[in-house]
Amino acid sequence: MSLTVVGSIAFDAVKTPFGARERMLGGSAVHFALAASFFGEVRVVGPVGDDFGASEYEVLRARGVNTDDVERVPGGKTFFWAGEYGENLNDRETLDTRLGVFGDFAPKLSDASRACDVLFLANIQPDLQREVREQCAGARFVALDSMNLWIETAPDSLKETIAGVDAVMLNDAEVRQLTGEASLLLAAREIMSWGPSAVVCKQGEYGAALFDAHGFFALPAYPLERVVDPTGAGDSFAGGLVGYIAAHPDEELGAPLLRGAMAYGTALGSFNVEEFGTERVQRLTGEEVSARVDDLERMTRFDGPPVALRG
Amino acid sequence: MSLTVVGSIAFDAVKTPFGARERMLGGSAVHFALAASFFGEVRVVGPVGDDFGASEYEVLRARGVNTDDVERVPGGKTFFWAGEYGENLNDRETLDTRLGVFGDFAPKLSDASRACDVLFLANIQPDLQREVREQCAGARFVALDSMNLWIETAPDSLKETIAGVDAVMLNDAEVRQLTGEASLLLAAREIMSWGPSAVVCKQGEYGAALFDAHGFFALPAYPLERVVDPTGAGDSFAGGLVGYIAAHPDEELGAPLLRGAMAYGTALGSFNVEEFGTERVQRLTGEEVSARVDDLERMTRFDGPPVALRG
Repeated sequence: MSLTVVGSIAFDAVKTPFGARERMLGGSAVHFALAASFFGEVRVVGPVGDDFGASEYEVLRARGVNTDDVERVPGGKTFFWAGEYGENLNDRETLDTRLGVFGDFAPKLSDASRACDVLFLANIQPDLQREVREQCAGARFVALDSMNLWIETAPDSLKETIAGVDAVMLNDAEVRQLTGEASLLLAAREIMSWGPSAVVCKQGEYGAALFDAHGFFALPAYPLERVVDPTGAGDSFAGGLVGYIAAHPDEELGAPLLRGAMAYGTALGSFNVEEFGTERVQRLTGEEVSARVDDLERMTRFDGPPVALRG
Repeated sequence: MSLTVVGSIAFDAVKTPFGARERMLGGSAVHFALAASFFGEVRVVGPVGDDFGASEYEVLRARGVNTDDVERVPGGKTFFWAGEYGENLNDRETLDTRLGVFGDFAPKLSDASRACDVLFLANIQPDLQREVREQCAGARFVALDSMNLWIETAPDSLKETIAGVDAVMLNDAEVRQLTGEASLLLAAREIMSWGPSAVVCKQGEYGAALFDAHGFFALPAYPLERVVDPTGAGDSFAGGLVGYIAAHPDEELGAPLLRGAMAYGTALGSFNVEEFGTERVQRLTGEEVSARVDDLERMTRFDGPPVALRG
């Protein structure tokens, strides 16, 4: 398959009710790529500093991720984020953000990355996303993520970027903020009227919903005894979803493909949150992923006895 | 079928972003009974005052609800609740509560109500719920609802009552508050260790999840363009769920029956919120309910092309 992701590569410091890590590999492009790597080769485009060492590269390469377009900026520092999650793990507080080399990021795509069949624009400034999207003119499927910061500070640019992609992946609050529409159904229809053929609403512990031309589809999150660290869950979900689509270059972008993609995204996201950062996904196996997708199918199937209704 | 519900009968004043009603028929037993009436006869046990008139009785009777055990208290006033919903409809503020005859409610069940095959204990004081449950010793399936007030003020009584029922229906926050457990999966297992064989977590706009001996099952809420008034949604959901079970007296209480019940509950709840109070359900047809259950089946089915995973 031929899949490129453009986004952040980071060190994260994270504290949750279940523990803490001072400095672990993170960033949207990293979480995405590790999840998508189960489906084939992924090319990562993103900047790192001198502090990004062999062991970090090795985490990516061990899963077959292509790091040729990881741009190492001499004298620079890798993007650093520190945050703390509260008891319910839905709300988090950012304690520190040091953009480092990410502050001046101008994505440079090799010919191989530009020639991708599928492209994921992780959450970066929407002008940059659009530039990358235009460089990958031949891509069959392009999806993007964004965040409240860009909805607030660059809404017109973001909308222009959205007009050029096939799928938008945002959380519920962002979908509502972006459109000013309280109903997710109406909000998704509005976004689709700008260009995309699909809107994926990420709903955290409640799973995810897909709005597209074929209608509505939703999957619950995989039930877990413990969510240890939600950092990167959305990007792992996106990696599973987009990776599955990239693995099917000859398949029509219809309901079967998109819904299967939602299931793989849900499975990958569920592993991500079981441990800190990339720890769980690093030792994940394809068999474990498949088993969870099969579980999800069983967890959502219903076929009760018929009933005669009155009135 | 043979189904009894014990709960409140009320007048509600509700304001939402889509309009307001000064005084409309409401209460947990009313919403439950109207939804369950699609499956057969329901007997309602609950108190009303002199102000409860022929037109209110007629709403129930028009759907075949048995009101023989609606207790009319001379000189009393029917329970009155006033509330306002904010923009997102998830949070509501109680503006006024006048218990009236509901303040001294001591459920009086006729022989016919006591002989029920299925019993729903809507949200009332847990000592009263337990008293009723003990009177209906022969019931094959008993479910209860409760609220944060009882979790805070009568936790021991509530737990004792829960120990005597088959299914508990609460929202996520209540499940967590009741058990002190952040993980819904662990919280549900704890509640099941007290006695019930099933825990239904109501999740508002995200649908509902079922935990039972067969594992985990979840359904999204039916996607709507507009949620006009959420009042009574949980009781309509319960009416659909419990009514479906009551309509199958010879069916084992296993996964097919419980999951089918979740689907009918979801469908009934979705109609309730489309208009104020009981307005939508009063003119609802069985065909409309069935169509929405069929939709839900299509909205949750996935069967994507196979994929070979790496690693």
